[in-house]
Amino acid sequence: MKHIISVLVENKFGTLNRVAAMFSARGFNLESISIGETEDNEISRMTIVTRGDDSIISQILKQLNRLIDTLKVVDVTHKPHISREVLLMTLNRGKQSQQEIFNLIDVFKAKVVDIKQKSITIEVVGSPDKINTTIEMFRPLGIKEIARSGTVAMTRGES
Amino acid sequence: MKHIISVLVENKFGTLNRVAAMFSARGFNLESISIGETEDNEISRMTIVTRGDDSIISQILKQLNRLIDTLKVVDVTHKPHISREVLLMTLNRGKQSQQEIFNLIDVFKAKVVDIKQKSITIEVVGSPDKINTTIEMFRPLGIKEIARSGTVAMTRGES
Repeated sequence: MKHIISVLVENKFGTLNRVAAMFSARGFNLESISIGETEDNEISRMTIVTRGDDSIISQILKQLNRLIDTLKVVDVTHKPHISREVLLMTLNRGKQSQQEIFNLIDVFKAKVVDIKQKSITIEVVGSPDKINTTIEMFRPLGIKEIARSGTVAMTRGES
Repeated sequence: MKHIISVLVENKFGTLNRVAAMFSARGFNLESISIGETEDNEISRMTIVTRGDDSIISQILKQLNRLIDTLKVVDVTHKPHISREVLLMTLNRGKQSQQEIFNLIDVFKAKVVDIKQKSITIEVVGSPDKINTTIEMFRPLGIKEIARSGTVAMTRGES
């Protein structure tokens, strides 16, 4: 099962590398990993998307907690949370498919970011599930290129 | 300087781990790395965000090309391209700041994704530069939490 893990770390050079190296050395699957600033200059937030059964995930959480720069590890998967991805997708623009493409753009609240004689590139934002559905719905119309960002996630606050 | 590198790889287990391990072993900086499906089931696309001078970047491109699962490596940084990130940001919601928050939400075409008694969480999509500007503009209003996804990028097609 897919898990989204959010890790607060001290803002030091190479932290993401050390985490990735740990995943690699232990053979843990890694689907995406990103690091970015937080509201505090000295702290960065890493979001990790991985897959595994309960025993693997519990090993991953333990190992993440052991790393020296780690301040806090949260598996947000089963907590109330918001998760988002961006999808960029280029579609073949044929005379027949054009109207259908625009209908779907409307349904998925996609945004046209580039348009050429034979293709159209759209941007879609949503939960990983929504992005999967979007790709499946557009697939019959002829996808030329797909690129999706890593996942970002945040637990829903109480106040 | 920040570089965005797009890599097409064969869809095999652990590809992202191998790339991350290579970055780690050689001391190359890694800001985000993600992998996702493409229009072809047998091929995945990795997007890597890294920093380095020209000599470092050229070493990175060479090493990526050497990896066995690699099909194509493109440094999109200096090519016409579209790059996007998602930002999730929770702001403190005070009586005084509320109107200003909503004004900025309008300016940055942000979307409210959660609202609580004392806080408001927004989603913003844009180029990494736009995301940086958004954070700086909201900062004086009181940021409670920031999380940003990795970058996704695509070169602009010719046709």
